[in-house]
Amino acid sequence: MTYCLAMMMDAGLVFAADSRTNAGMDSVSTFRKLHVFETPGERLLVVLSAGNLAITQAVMAMLSEGAPDDRDAKTLLTVETVYDAARLTGDALRRLHDRDSKYFSAHDIGFNASFIVGGQIKGGRMRLFQVYAAGNFIEATPETAYFQIGETKYGKPIIERVLTPKLDLLSAAKCALVSLDSTIRSNVSVAPPIDLLVYKRDSLAVSTRQWVKDDDPYFNAVRGKWGAGLRTLFDTLPQPQWAVEVE
Amino acid sequence: MTYCLAMMMDAGLVFAADSRTNAGMDSVSTFRKLHVFETPGERLLVVLSAGNLAITQAVMAMLSEGAPDDRDAKTLLTVETVYDAARLTGDALRRLHDRDSKYFSAHDIGFNASFIVGGQIKGGRMRLFQVYAAGNFIEATPETAYFQIGETKYGKPIIERVLTPKLDLLSAAKCALVSLDSTIRSNVSVAPPIDLLVYKRDSLAVSTRQWVKDDDPYFNAVRGKWGAGLRTLFDTLPQPQWAVEVE
Repeated sequence: MTYCLAMMMDAGLVFAADSRTNAGMDSVSTFRKLHVFETPGERLLVVLSAGNLAITQAVMAMLSEGAPDDRDAKTLLTVETVYDAARLTGDALRRLHDRDSKYFSAHDIGFNASFIVGGQIKGGRMRLFQVYAAGNFIEATPETAYFQIGETKYGKPIIERVLTPKLDLLSAAKCALVSLDSTIRSNVSVAPPIDLLVYKRDSLAVSTRQWVKDDDPYFNAVRGKWGAGLRTLFDTLPQPQWAVEVE
Repeated sequence: MTYCLAMMMDAGLVFAADSRTNAGMDSVSTFRKLHVFETPGERLLVVLSAGNLAITQAVMAMLSEGAPDDRDAKTLLTVETVYDAARLTGDALRRLHDRDSKYFSAHDIGFNASFIVGGQIKGGRMRLFQVYAAGNFIEATPETAYFQIGETKYGKPIIERVLTPKLDLLSAAKCALVSLDSTIRSNVSVAPPIDLLVYKRDSLAVSTRQWVKDDDPYFNAVRGKWGAGLRTLFDTLPQPQWAVEVE
């Protein structure tokens, strides 16, 4: 399993992903799921990937090097808009599906992969997309300005409560860490290090990228205070006044 | 969808369930999912049900009236132990599966149902079981002293943080309401009223049963303070010190 998250605010974008990959319980390893395509001053595109690792790696190869047998194929360093980046990702998925799905079916393996694609290219606006396994995609809007892929449920409530278009980038990064922490606590197939990237609108370059390990002092301060704070908050909620005999 | 929850503490048991049932998006109704079998001073058994309503109602009928074509069949008012109550529930599921599953298959309907069974019978100890669709079951222990069925993920983190064997019954009921609220906020197929029952160990009777509607003043106080408190707690977490240029 995997948990990836991207949030769009007026100030910019925040991307985060865990790094655990497993094929069964006894084959657990660490892979990056956050992929950066950057030409500083000209473009910054980020792709988050979830699903079958053979599929996502094949798609990332096409996005980096162009589709095979097509010397003129676009890559994420040459597409002209973020919309085209999402379309290229969907096209790569469809090309792979055409080529591989019959072998997957023969082995009873589902064609399981999804992506989040976001960023900004000079002359265009900042955009964020989610690309489904079928190659179709949707775009984030101010009303729903985030996407999650993989194990999405545990980490959703904090985003719903905190994310607004006005949220500053560092608070959004903090929100991403809390969301990842909630998921990591609940699902053993999601684990640190956390790959985290902050993009400031119109900067056309990475603002910061952090590889947050399990012993990261800031991450541990956040999760320690969050856990203790939740417990304290729970204790301060009013008790019910129902007539229950309590010795 | 459904969300049901039961917790076992030294002091007793707390059961809670939402009440929304839906067959497709345009057929939404209210059904109780918390079923009580009580002979005050002799037994208190509670069954929580999730899954296909036709299956769960048929199982509940067998638990109330005995299996058809068997005049001597046990019911939850005559079984001798809580363990036997769990076994009777599993047996009812298997009997139903034997009778109905070929018709379900013919209509591509999955045999989807699960139950939580708990309580106490005079002379025995308080116990809590989860019964799967296959009729097999597991028992709660002090290390993992709760069960959830239905839409379980959103409401799990607060239980993991709060539940201990020493938790008092009213705090556990409060925890159940927070857990239900988190789920209701995130999944439209889970909705109030919330059916909530508190059982005090060795009392062999219902301590309190509450039918918590959407406009319940206590429920609204809890969810209002919880939401505001989470937001305040988030704001008080330390900000990251990464070098991100923030105008």
